Amino acid sequence: MSSPDVNLNLNVRGMGQSATVAINDRSNALRKEGREVFKLGLGQSPFPVPSSVVAELQANAFQKDYLPVKGLRELRKAVADYHRRTQGMACDTEDVLIGPGSKELMFLLQLVYYGDLIIPTPAWVSYAPQANIIGRHIQWIHTEKSDQWRMTPAQLEAVCRRDAGRPRVLILNYPSNPTGATFSADQLQALAEVARRYKVVVLSDEIYGELHHEGRHVSIARFYPEGTIVSSGLSKWAGAGGWRLGTFAFPRSMQWLLEAMAAVASETYTSVSAPIQFAACRAFRGGLDIEKYLHHSRRILNALGGWCAARMEAAGVSVSPPDGGFYLFPDFSACARATRLRSRSSSEWTENLLEDTGVAILPGSSFGRSDEELQARLAYVDFDGGRALYASQSVTEPEALDEEFLRTFCPNVTNAIDRLAEWAGH
Amino acid sequence: MSSPDVNLNLNVRGMGQSATVAINDRSNALRKEGREVFKLGLGQSPFPVPSSVVAELQANAFQKDYLPVKGLRELRKAVADYHRRTQGMACDTEDVLIGPGSKELMFLLQLVYYGDLIIPTPAWVSYAPQANIIGRHIQWIHTEKSDQWRMTPAQLEAVCRRDAGRPRVLILNYPSNPTGATFSADQLQALAEVARRYKVVVLSDEIYGELHHEGRHVSIARFYPEGTIVSSGLSKWAGAGGWRLGTFAFPRSMQWLLEAMAAVASETYTSVSAPIQFAACRAFRGGLDIEKYLHHSRRILNALGGWCAARMEAAGVSVSPPDGGFYLFPDFSACARATRLRSRSSSEWTENLLEDTGVAILPGSSFGRSDEELQARLAYVDFDGGRALYASQSVTEPEALDEEFLRTFCPNVTNAIDRLAEWAGH
Repeated sequence: MSSPDVNLNLNVRGMGQSATVAINDRSNALRKEGREVFKLGLGQSPFPVPSSVVAELQANAFQKDYLPVKGLRELRKAVADYHRRTQGMACDTEDVLIGPGSKELMFLLQLVYYGDLIIPTPAWVSYAPQANIIGRHIQWIHTEKSDQWRMTPAQLEAVCRRDAGRPRVLILNYPSNPTGATFSADQLQALAEVARRYKVVVLSDEIYGELHHEGRHVSIARFYPEGTIVSSGLSKWAGAGGWRLGTFAFPRSMQWLLEAMAAVASETYTSVSAPIQFAACRAFRGGLDIEKYLHHSRRILNALGGWCAARMEAAGVSVSPPDGGFYLFPDFSACARATRLRSRSSSEWTENLLEDTGVAILPGSSFGRSDEELQARLAYVDFDGGRALYASQSVTEPEALDEEFLRTFCPNVTNAIDRLAEWAGH
Repeated sequence: MSSPDVNLNLNVRGMGQSATVAINDRSNALRKEGREVFKLGLGQSPFPVPSSVVAELQANAFQKDYLPVKGLRELRKAVADYHRRTQGMACDTEDVLIGPGSKELMFLLQLVYYGDLIIPTPAWVSYAPQANIIGRHIQWIHTEKSDQWRMTPAQLEAVCRRDAGRPRVLILNYPSNPTGATFSADQLQALAEVARRYKVVVLSDEIYGELHHEGRHVSIARFYPEGTIVSSGLSKWAGAGGWRLGTFAFPRSMQWLLEAMAAVASETYTSVSAPIQFAACRAFRGGLDIEKYLHHSRRILNALGGWCAARMEAAGVSVSPPDGGFYLFPDFSACARATRLRSRSSSEWTENLLEDTGVAILPGSSFGRSDEELQARLAYVDFDGGRALYASQSVTEPEALDEEFLRTFCPNVTNAIDRLAEWAGH
């Protein structure tokens, strides 16, 4: 008896699993062999889901009905209120779409919108594979280290000027995965002007917005409200990556795009898990306990990110201190080890780092950069977030969390950076 | 300020929401106007999620980690055990893929497999729109009332013979949405022989398998193990449609298809909600409480489905008594009202029914049949399943549940059928 033959869509054939998933599997395998592994590969929030949100999930565990395709009405309202409250956006219940993760919503956007994709690099790993699956064109914009990996208005202008009327979606992710950098209000305004001139759809991926280390995230929607879709969700700021809930907020004038995405959603995932949606209302409504949780999350990430960057800089690794989120994007090309060994491949570099020191990070080539640039993404998340949150509350403000605190409560991260710095520095 | 222009993928442009979603919205709107509405449109299980499964969700509300793309290992094992236990399938942990609803998994299957889709009609509403979104060809097979809407091996053979080597996926849904009919073991074996001859991939949608009214569901995987993917999930037999969890079980020789779907999943929905997956383990592991729940669910649906069919037949409506699930597919073409008014449109027929009587059902044209055939789908689910389950336990076995029971515990369904029968019968 012979099975049906292999017949695969050629856009999909040969595709592996995403790089972040792969590094996680590899780290776990090494740990099983008894090796000490520092997991700075996968970008998962170290913090637990706020207890009031977990309690809300428990209270709604019995909810069994199919919810509306666009999302539970109360949740859509809570998300709209959240955007109005935090960014002053003119956002209403009708402008919000709920999905099983913002990644799925981005896929639907690319599937229904007929246009090119503009991706500034370094960029998060899944934007481009989504375009490849669907068969969309990608226009890369390679940003410069001297600009702290921020796309400039001139770069955007240069791409848009060619075939000016061409429909395009620009993906803007800030604070950035993988660099930790964000844009200033002035920079966003200048980018908004270019986008408006060429009627570019801006997908503003603000999933790390609440993790701006000083709580001062600004959205480009303030400057380009008529063409910006704001993407958010529970995964990063509420520690609930595994829950799978993402949100899109559309300008009213782009209701046609929301409707088209909802039509496809009704034939694919149908709606997001009901108990999860009821619980998410609690998170987006906010309140004192959520603010306290966010305040200490930011305080810890701010101290830890700054410390990591400084420690690496001191070892000759070039890296910008982060503005938000939990990533750093070091460039190793000028450090002692790279110079000594004439290293020229970021994937080999991170392989060797893992072999020699047990520190798992991802090569820059996984983020749309040339493998010959010696860059990598490092996620400073391998610590017990619940313990650190609790401890931070005992350190009187406005005192910053010091090295002793970090070495006590984030030992895997500080040890990993020590090893990495020593390894790279000679 | 003008927003970005409308640019939509033409496979998607003009697509509405699915018909089942639309009838639900329309019914709710009429109820808000104060009209009495009997909701026999949307096919949602009337029964609550088993309490042991709800308790498991509460106990796992804290689970926050991203789970593996293919699904939580314990859950994949529980699903494999379930298929081995219930159908004797040679199914292992590695052969199972978990998704956010089996509908999403079917979409991924169509996206990654490069081949035509064979759909016997009447068929569930979402198979064809998925193919349209992706741009796949659909080959319809129109089944006959005289065959109780069951596709025959000769019909399948006739399609496959043309271009015999063409890659194809056959969708087989039994017990059937929308007809309630299932196949006998002999019929499945005969279909399996044709599928094997032409190496057709069979997607065996067995989401209603556990709701076979006598608990005697047989899978085509018994006769065509090397080419059958079995689709199941929590939505129908565990009452958890809103939770969004579906499962696919693959033959080992088709691991390439599972892997390709997982690769796309890793770039789209990522994984299914973690707390939901932990809770689902409890459902698939089964046990005495689950068996009792299923036994009484079947007992109620069996009595109610049979009663509905008989009541309609008596009024001159042609309808087969159901084998399983919770649907009937009446044909109204020979009833008094249709003859008197020379009715020729199923969509107009169901519109008028809703206007005149408040009974909401879906026209046959939503299930791939010509609108000129006077058919419709009726879901006998508008009752309080928790109350009925409890009451059923007090009725001594093997006594069947009688009309008095049904009129007491499923009054919306019996009243709706009374109205429908009277309306159609003169």
